[in-house]
Formats: sequence, structure tokens, C-alpha cells
Amino acid sequence: MSVKFALLGAGRIGKVHAKAVTSNPDAQLVAVTDAMADAANAVAQQYGARVASLDEIAAASDIDAVIICTPTDTHADLIQKYSNAGKAIFCEKPIDLNVERVKACLQTVATNGTALMVGFNRRFDPSFAALKAEIEAGTIGDVEQVVITSRDPGLPPYDYIPVSGGIFRDMTIHDFDMARFLLGEEVETVMATGSCLVDPKVKELGDFDTAAAILTTASGKQAIINNSRRATYGYDQRVEVHGSKGSVSAQNERPVNIEVATSAGYTAPPLHDFFMTRYVAAYAAEIAEFIEVVKNSKAPSPSGADGLAALAIAEAAEASVASGASIKINK
Amino acid sequence: MSVKFALLGAGRIGKVHAKAVTSNPDAQLVAVTDAMADAANAVAQQYGARVASLDEIAAASDIDAVIICTPTDTHADLIQKYSNAGKAIFCEKPIDLNVERVKACLQTVATNGTALMVGFNRRFDPSFAALKAEIEAGTIGDVEQVVITSRDPGLPPYDYIPVSGGIFRDMTIHDFDMARFLLGEEVETVMATGSCLVDPKVKELGDFDTAAAILTTASGKQAIINNSRRATYGYDQRVEVHGSKGSVSAQNERPVNIEVATSAGYTAPPLHDFFMTRYVAAYAAEIAEFIEVVKNSKAPSPSGADGLAALAIAEAAEASVASGASIKINK
Amino acid sequence: MSVKFALLGAGRIGKVHAKAVTSNPDAQLVAVTDAMADAANAVAQQYGARVASLDEIAAASDIDAVIICTPTDTHADLIQKYSNAGKAIFCEKPIDLNVERVKACLQTVATNGTALMVGFNRRFDPSFAALKAEIEAGTIGDVEQVVITSRDPGLPPYDYIPVSGGIFRDMTIHDFDMARFLLGEEVETVMATGSCLVDPKVKELGDFDTAAAILTTASGKQAIINNSRRATYGYDQRVEVHGSKGSVSAQNERPVNIEVATSAGYTAPPLHDFFMTRYVAAYAAEIAEFIEVVKNSKAPSPSGADGLAALAIAEAAEASVASGASIKINK
Amino acid sequence: MSVKFALLGAGRIGKVHAKAVTSNPDAQLVAVTDAMADAANAVAQQYGARVASLDEIAAASDIDAVIICTPTDTHADLIQKYSNAGKAIFCEKPIDLNVERVKACLQTVATNGTALMVGFNRRFDPSFAALKAEIEAGTIGDVEQVVITSRDPGLPPYDYIPVSGGIFRDMTIHDFDMARFLLGEEVETVMATGSCLVDPKVKELGDFDTAAAILTTASGKQAIINNSRRATYGYDQRVEVHGSKGSVSAQNERPVNIEVATSAGYTAPPLHDFFMTRYVAAYAAEIAEFIEVVKNSKAPSPSGADGLAALAIAEAAEASVASGASIKINK
Repeated sequence: MSVKFALLGAGRIGKVHAKAVTSNPDAQLVAVTDAMADAANAVAQQYGARVASLDEIAAASDIDAVIICTPTDTHADLIQKYSNAGKAIFCEKPIDLNVERVKACLQTVATNGTALMVGFNRRFDPSFAALKAEIEAGTIGDVEQVVITSRDPGLPPYDYIPVSGGIFRDMTIHDFDMARFLLGEEVETVMATGSCLVDPKVKELGDFDTAAAILTTASGKQAIINNSRRATYGYDQRVEVHGSKGSVSAQNERPVNIEVATSAGYTAPPLHDFFMTRYVAAYAAEIAEFIEVVKNSKAPSPSGADGLAALAIAEAAEASVASGASIKINK
Repeated sequence: MSVKFALLGAGRIGKVHAKAVTSNPDAQLVAVTDAMADAANAVAQQYGARVASLDEIAAASDIDAVIICTPTDTHADLIQKYSNAGKAIFCEKPIDLNVERVKACLQTVATNGTALMVGFNRRFDPSFAALKAEIEAGTIGDVEQVVITSRDPGLPPYDYIPVSGGIFRDMTIHDFDMARFLLGEEVETVMATGSCLVDPKVKELGDFDTAAAILTTASGKQAIINNSRRATYGYDQRVEVHGSKGSVSAQNERPVNIEVATSAGYTAPPLHDFFMTRYVAAYAAEIAEFIEVVKNSKAPSPSGADGLAALAIAEAAEASVASGASIKINK
Repeated sequence: MSVKFALLGAGRIGKVHAKAVTSNPDAQLVAVTDAMADAANAVAQQYGARVASLDEIAAASDIDAVIICTPTDTHADLIQKYSNAGKAIFCEKPIDLNVERVKACLQTVATNGTALMVGFNRRFDPSFAALKAEIEAGTIGDVEQVVITSRDPGLPPYDYIPVSGGIFRDMTIHDFDMARFLLGEEVETVMATGSCLVDPKVKELGDFDTAAAILTTASGKQAIINNSRRATYGYDQRVEVHGSKGSVSAQNERPVNIEVATSAGYTAPPLHDFFMTRYVAAYAAEIAEFIEVVKNSKAPSPSGADGLAALAIAEAAEASVASGASIKINK
Repeated sequence: MSVKFALLGAGRIGKVHAKAVTSNPDAQLVAVTDAMADAANAVAQQYGARVASLDEIAAASDIDAVIICTPTDTHADLIQKYSNAGKAIFCEKPIDLNVERVKACLQTVATNGTALMVGFNRRFDPSFAALKAEIEAGTIGDVEQVVITSRDPGLPPYDYIPVSGGIFRDMTIHDFDMARFLLGEEVETVMATGSCLVDPKVKELGDFDTAAAILTTASGKQAIINNSRRATYGYDQRVEVHGSKGSVSAQNERPVNIEVATSAGYTAPPLHDFFMTRYVAAYAAEIAEFIEVVKNSKAPSPSGADGLAALAIAEAAEASVASGASIKINK
């Protein structure tokens, strides 16, 4: 029996999820909705699904699960709506930019007993997953430090910045989740720094484009993160974990593995241009996991609580930049 | 308008092609056939195609093209049958193990004016294709030497060896095609060596498991190939091209990009286990190219003539091992 | 005319410097001193130098320069003594663990107009020097972030820890100097974290064995450092610099460039065991530079002021761990 | 007691050996000779040795060993002269370009019972030595194929080519020795190809600038070699050995380990410019081994017989190109 899906939001990332659903033998795309009728129609036609309204999807008895990839400010409402309708929910990060709003959502989901999985896609990247597996296999002993390099190829559009929640909630939040995923212990304090070095317009908009953070757990494990909104050589995504017996690192994935050698030296092509090409395998694996969650009543992971925890770290990081002090995470 | 396909052979590689066809928006899988009814049924059901006989497929007016992935000894007959039926043909390599039989096939195809593309999948690997693009862009100047490393993880089944045509026609033929693809000039002479070092049973069966060859063109360009049927660390597939201005190389593709560092040193996981996982992207790109061929009457490449040329080199290589002399290629 | 040297301290690092001096055609080792007569004799005999007392060296008219590699707590006194004697001085880091004492030393040296160069050897490593040259050539545009990985293979002896000045003054100080060397702008604030994860004895001794720091300049450039006293895979020394046009990184130097591939994967040997083998070329280049300083009255770099600046950052880092706040550097 | 040396030939490679001798605590450079008085004087002065004639060196009772780095056509005469004088001999490759002349030399040395070591420096490269150690440790099981990439940055001077003995005796001979070193079994047959692709002048001079060879042993082990006199990216020196349990490879050594990443991709600097910089460590280790040979009456390796064996392969390779046939090695 296959899991029947509705897709909420037929934009760029919605299409990625639609493809993941339809090429999975255990799932079926039944309905699509989008504020832009054309976008919904295109996806619906390609995969033989119907276009439906938000209410129709909530009421439909042939829909088991929804994938939320609408704008961020709609996520919390939609989670509550579909949880109340008894649907399993996969929601792109973040649940909301406001911690209290997220908590309310999680309460609804808990009350209804519906599944909620959050789209921290990087956990499903084959290399990061293999790195995590090495940690769990004990290869590197006890984790001591996690070092995350996460550098975007370019700035988001200016008009997105004011609604993004700031670099820590928008971009670094992926690294905060990765740190939690790998540290194996909750983050207790955060120190962070933010600068505007890429574009002065970012400063005018009240955000940073260059950031660094140190997270510390109760036992003294550390995660050290560097971020920039400018990486001319492509989307730079690396992780190192150092433990008592050794280290494990995930290097950048290359679009092609060629190298040209001339009198100028050895040159390999730039990295992937951004997440859509870099995380193709991760997006497919993420939806496959969610299908497992729905089909086999498996506990969703990353869960809503994971989404909340990463957001709380982002909030603390922002406070740390403002105060120049180390900030304790609110629990 | 999408290209309508029949799949001839629903085994391992047939399934790969079925997936490539069905996930391409410009193509449709209409019919499947296989000597094993269960195999044909499984693929037909998964993709909503019908099971049909070879004759029904030849006669079907709703089928534009066939993909031949039946056993090697059926290829030539099927090519002629479907060429006579006016179908475009994609055929797994080799067309046949006998040069004269291949020539007869090519004659039929030429007479009928039907498209024939041969499955030298490696040309479509993103890294090898990028390497070829660098050569064509002039980055390395005039090609001087091509060095190909091609090492299988293990022996084929014993019962396959006697019908395989021998290592040069079965395995090295891919490298001969790659050499032709990259040299940019026809191979004129071949020197080759073959040994049995992996398994004495291979010798009993009249084949080699370890081989090397040097191909030379009229102007003196060289291709140097090393082969083994045993690579404990996975499927080893590398190419280097050296030219007057520099070199370009394609390294092995890694299933995951992680590295573990301990007191024992730095360890990365083994390579892909074999061609089914290593050449996923190549198989999809190959079928996409064939769809272009059919849709837009593009000249097929690699063509039947490419299949013939690689086979002639394989034949010469075998003769070189037997005689200890450099052998001129028959044209 | 060659520069005539006295070596103060004939221990492990003293021998390295003795070899660098004697194999440089522009220098000569004239005298050696050490609290352990045997150590002084051994070096003196090997290179045809005389054993002399500290006072004899200060008074000797045939000695132009001294290399101080005695225990840390003697550095400041010796610098003042030999500056007053008119000798050029190369001093192993640190000048002193106390900022005021260092300032007094620098005052003496300035008053006497004698040269003082400090042994931040890493600046002279061929790879780090090449990285710096790329920055200066403008290849990566304006520097934005420096990321330093610096991990020792093991703890220092327990009895050294209490006199070491703590991890920030003893170990991280090299990274603070590297950060200053590469940022191209003075560090203004420091945030740091320290933990004891390697050995609880380190905690008892009042030190950390695992540390991280973020340095920030007035314009918002950042340096991010991770440290551990335990790297099972060898001495881990890497630097990345990210700028407006690109990045430049220096990877670890390998003792040998081999790789073994088996069914367990691809394995390369561990890194160098520690600084004595890792920085062979750097030590030679450092002394060659100092010879230039003495011979050609070139300005010493890294200078006493560089030693002071790195120490001030270390002091601030320690204060940041204690207070949990970002600390401004004292100037 | 240290070994006392005379250096015959104070040119480029002579200076390398002089430095290796003088920085080894177990050796002393006593005398230097060269047809150019200035060259001899310069080296003698730098290291405190005397200038002496060939006869004086032969007669000198304070000289244990000679290092021959005079022009190739003098090697055989000098070996016989100094063997007759009872000196241990280190001779740069080749002993002579003529197999019979080499045999006569070896006979003299055998009769006199004097040590003769031949300068196949690559065996002493730390990476190639480590690769050999892995083979001997059994890590890769039984050796099956050796793949050698050996590409010079540029052509030798035109006037050297006619006296060089041709590419196989001059350049590939190093690869033939490496193949013998790693195969662990004598080479029985050779197939080779030679072309002129770099410079037509090389053809006029009767030589090749691009070559490939396949060597085979009695049991079927193979060595596959590719050569060019043009590598724009530097001196390309790589070795792979494939065995029954795995493979071991030695990659190129890099002058510095940096990488620049920009929108053009990832670029590492070119390789070493040639053997003088690439094999610094190998030259020192080679002389250290020879000092062991003289001091401890250790059997010299590579020996005169190794020099002869590599030359016989070179001769066969040349005959193979001429005849287009596989050639058996003369024993």
C-alpha cells in the first residue's frame, strides 16, 4: 500500500519533492496546491495528480500526508491545520521564526498524535550520513569537536533578507542542526560573531553576511561553525568531527571528478552551484525516510523538537552577537 | 511528442534503461518483452507498459524505438528484425562477437536508413564527458597519449566466460571505444599482452584475467590500457589524456566523500561495487541522447560503426597476444 | 662575510637551529652554551664550535647574534642581557608569559637598537608562505575569514603544563600569530572556549586540552581556530583563508604520498608525528631569514611586537573563557 | 670512523652528492676532481676538500670511495680504474650504453671484489620506498601489474640526444629499473612503441619523445609504462602496483600543499620542475645507503647487475619498436 501525498507549494523545492515522491514505489502524488495556479497545474499534469485547494486537501480521505513547501510565514498555520485534519506532515525548515509559535505548533501535533518531520535535508546527504554512521560505529571514539564549514555561493535576494529571520535562523540553522546531530549531546551555550563584508546593503537590512559561532555542551564538547554568503567557487559544505580515537570528515561533493594540468597548475572545476544540485540525493533520501515514517509509524527524525532546538540556538546566537557574551540556550 | 519505446530484455540492465525511459519527460515505455515472463511482467506493471512478443513489437504502430538488452548472441538478429520493421534501435554492446556479422547488421541498418546507437555507456559518464569537452575546448592542445585504467571488482561467472568472446571483446572493448573517443584519430596498430593471474580456471576456459594493450594511430598518438578482473577496492575506472599543452584526467567517482583519520592513517571507503552503481548517471544520459536521436533525427553516436571499430581492435589485440607481434587493424 | 652565531640552549630545538646555521653558507656557529655541559659539548663538537658561558658569549667580539632556545622563563632576561651587549637576537616563542615583562624587553631592545626576531616558525613553512603570497598577490581579493585547524598529536608532559602559561599562551599562540599574519588587520576582540576532554589531569592542573576561539578585527574580519591536544592521526596543521574573490587553503603535509587500496578502502599513512618533522623546512627558512636580518639590517619579522601582540590575544582568550564574554585586546 | 670520499665530476648532480656526503655524520669529502678546474675548486672550497687529479685520487690512501658523476662515456673506464685501485664506487646511471662494455665492467668489479652501486635514485624516494615496503609487508598480496607514469617537463638539449643512447636507455631506463624493483620477478619480454609528437627535430636526431612499453615476466606479471618528454605541469612521476589483495600507489610529490578556489575552480600549483628538486630526499637517502655499503660491507643495491638488467630491457624495447614484435630479454 503506497502513501498518498498532497504537495503544498509547487515552487523550486516543491518540484524536487514531487519528483522524489513519484519515483518512490511506495508513494503516490495525489494532489497539488499553490497560490500560483500555473505552478500547481504544471506539477499536477506532469505527475497525473489533481489540483486542489488547501481545504479540499485537508478534507480528502485519499490523502495521508502533506509536504509543506510554501513560504515560511505560512508553515505554522498549515502544520496546525493539517495536524488537526489528521495528516502526517513533512515541513520544510523552519517551522516558524518565532520560538513560541513553534512551541504552539508542536503542542498541536502532540495533542493530535500526528507525525511531523522537519526538512533538515543535510542529515540525509550520503556523505554526511556515512560520517554519522562512523561516529555511531565508534570509529572515532567520543566526539570532542565538530567543525562545520558552510558557505553559500551568493546572497539571497534583497527582499528576502528582512523576512528571512536573519542569517542565523535562515542559513546557520542548518549548521546548528548538523552540530546537534553530530555532537550527541545538547548544546548549552553559544558564542557568535556576525559581520557585513560581502555587501553593505545587508547591513542596511539589519543582517550579517559573514558569521562564526562556537557551541558548547554541558560536558565541554564544542561545535565551531564558519559561514559566508559568498563563495565564488561554489556551494561549500564540509563537516569534520574529531573524537577521542580519531576524526571523520566529509569533503565537498564534486559535480565531476576531472582535473586539468597545465603550466598554470592543476585545476578542478568549481563545486555545485547551490543546494538544488548539491543535495539531490539528500532530498530523495529525506522523502524516502518520511514515507517510512508514514507507512511504518516510525518516529519522525528530524522531528519538530529538532526544528525547535535549532531555532533556539539561532536565537541565542543572535543574542550573543548583540551582547558580546556567551548565551545559554533556553529550554 | 514523446518517443515510444519497447524494451527487449527485462534483466538487470533492462531495468536501468526502463527507469531512464520512464523518468524522461520526452519518452514513454509502451511495451516490454523477455524470455522470462515474470521479468517482463514485473517491469511492465511497474511502469504501466504492456507485455508483448517480439513480433508484436515489430508490428506495433505505436512503437518508435527498441532498446535491446537481451543476451549478446541475439543482438544481431534483433537489430536486423527491428531495422527491417523501421524502428530506431539502441543496442547494448556488442552488436555481435563476429566482425562479419556486425558488418552485415550495419549494412541492413544503412539500407533501411534506421537509427542504430550502441551502448558504450562510459562516453556519457559526466566526468568522462567533461574530460572530452576539455579536449574539444583545446585546453590540453593536441592529444598525444591516452592512459586508461579499467579494473573490474571480480571475475564474471565461469559459464559466461566461454560465450563472452574473451576479455578483449567483453571488457577491454569499452576501453578501446574510450581510446577511439579520446584519441581523435583512428587506431592503426595494437600490441597486447594477456595473463592469467587471478584464477587458473580462466586459463582452462581459454581466456585471460589480466591484460594490457598499446594502441597507436598513424600519426603516432598512443593509448595505453591496463585491465584486471580483480580489484578488491571496487570498480576502478580512470582515464588520463596527455596533450601538447597539458593533461586532463578523470579520477574514480566515490560513493561517499568521507575520510576517517585514526592512528592507522587516513581511510576513505572503497569505490562503487560495479557498473550498475558507478554509471547511474551515464545510463540516464545515454538514453536521453538516444531519445534526442529519435526525436530530432540526430546522427546516433556511438554508432554501429563505432561498435564495429572497437570490435576490430579487440580482434587485433587477441591476435597480438597470440603472435607476440604488433597487429594492424582491419578496416 | 658570514654571520657568527652563539647558540643558547642545546636541546631538541637548539640542535635544529644549529643545523640550520651550519648548513647556511652565510653563517657560522661559533659558540654553544647549555646548563647541561654534555648537551653543549655534543653540539659544539659536531660543528666545530666552542663551549662558552653566557657572559663569555655576551663579551665575545666574534659573535654577532644569539639564538635563544633555553627554557621560557629565561627568555626575557637573556634578551635584555644580549641586547645590552649589542647582539642581534633570535628568540624562540614566547618572549615571556607576562605581557608587562615582554613590554619591558621590547623597550630594552628598542633603546639599544638591536634586532629581535621571534620564532613563529609556521610563517616560514613553504605551504603557509605560499598561501600568504597568494593573498598578497590579490588572488582571493580582500580577506574575510581565516580558519585555522591546529591539533597536537598528544599532551605535553604533566610537569610542563603548570609552567606553560596555559594552552592559549603555549599552543594557540601560534594560531593567534598565524591569524594576525593572514588577516592583514589587527585583532580587536576575542571569544574563546576551553574544555578538558582529553585527560582530567589537565583540569586538575588548571589548563584546557580542547579549545576554540573567534577573533574579530575592527572591520569585521574573523579568524576561527580549533585546537586539541589529541590527534591520533598525527600533527594536524591546516589553514584556510576566505576572501572576496575566492579562498586559499594549505592542507596537511604528508610524510609520504602513498595510498593503499584494499577491500577496506583507500588508506594513506598518518601525518607527521609533531613539529620537529613537520616543520623541517620552516625552521631552516626561519634561520635563513634571521641571517638576512643580521647581514642586511633588514627589519626582523616576526618581530618582538608580533610576539607581544600574539601574547595579548592569548591573555584575552583566557579572560574570555573565564568570563564567558567577548574580550577587547589591550593595546 | 667515517667514510672518506672523492667526488668525480663537480657539475649539477655532483654538487647534490657533495652536499649529501658532507651533511652525513658518517662521511667526509676529501677530494674533488673535474675537467673544469673552476667547478672542482668551488666544491672543494665550500666543503674543505682538496682538488686532486684522477690518478692522485686512485693512489690516495685516505680515500675509501668515489662517486662518479662525470659524462656517461667515461663511466666504464672510471669504474675499472677505481675498482683496480680498490675503491668502493657509486656510479650515476648508466654504467655504459653498451651492454658488452657493462658486462666487462662488472667482471672487473667482481674480480677485484670492490663494491659498485648504481644511481637509480628513485628507489630511495621516500614515497616509492614506502610503496615497496607495503609490497614486502604483503599488504597487496602477490604483485600482478605495475603501472608507471614518467613524464619529463621538457626535452633534453638537442646536442645531448645523439649521445643519450635514445629515450629507452636515457629516460625509460629509470622506469625499467623501477619495474624490476617492484615486480619481484625478472622481466622476460618487452613490447614498446615510440613516437615523435613533441618536436620533429627529435625524429631527425633518430630518437623518440613519446613512448610506451609493456614488460612481462615468466609468470605473466606485467609492467606498463608511459613516457613523454613534455609535461607542461611539471615532472610527473607516479607508480601504481596492483596485487591479489589490493593496490598501492605513489602520487606526485607537491612542492607546496596549497589550493586556490575561485570562480575558475580549484587550482593547485604545478609539480616540481625536474629531478633536482623532486628527488632531494632520494639523493640524500641514496648516498646514505652507499655509506652503509662501504662502512658495513653491505651488498650494494641497486648493483651493477641491476644497471645491466635495466639496460638489457632498454635495448629490447628499442628492438621492439623497430621490429613491431615482442622481444625476449637477453640474459
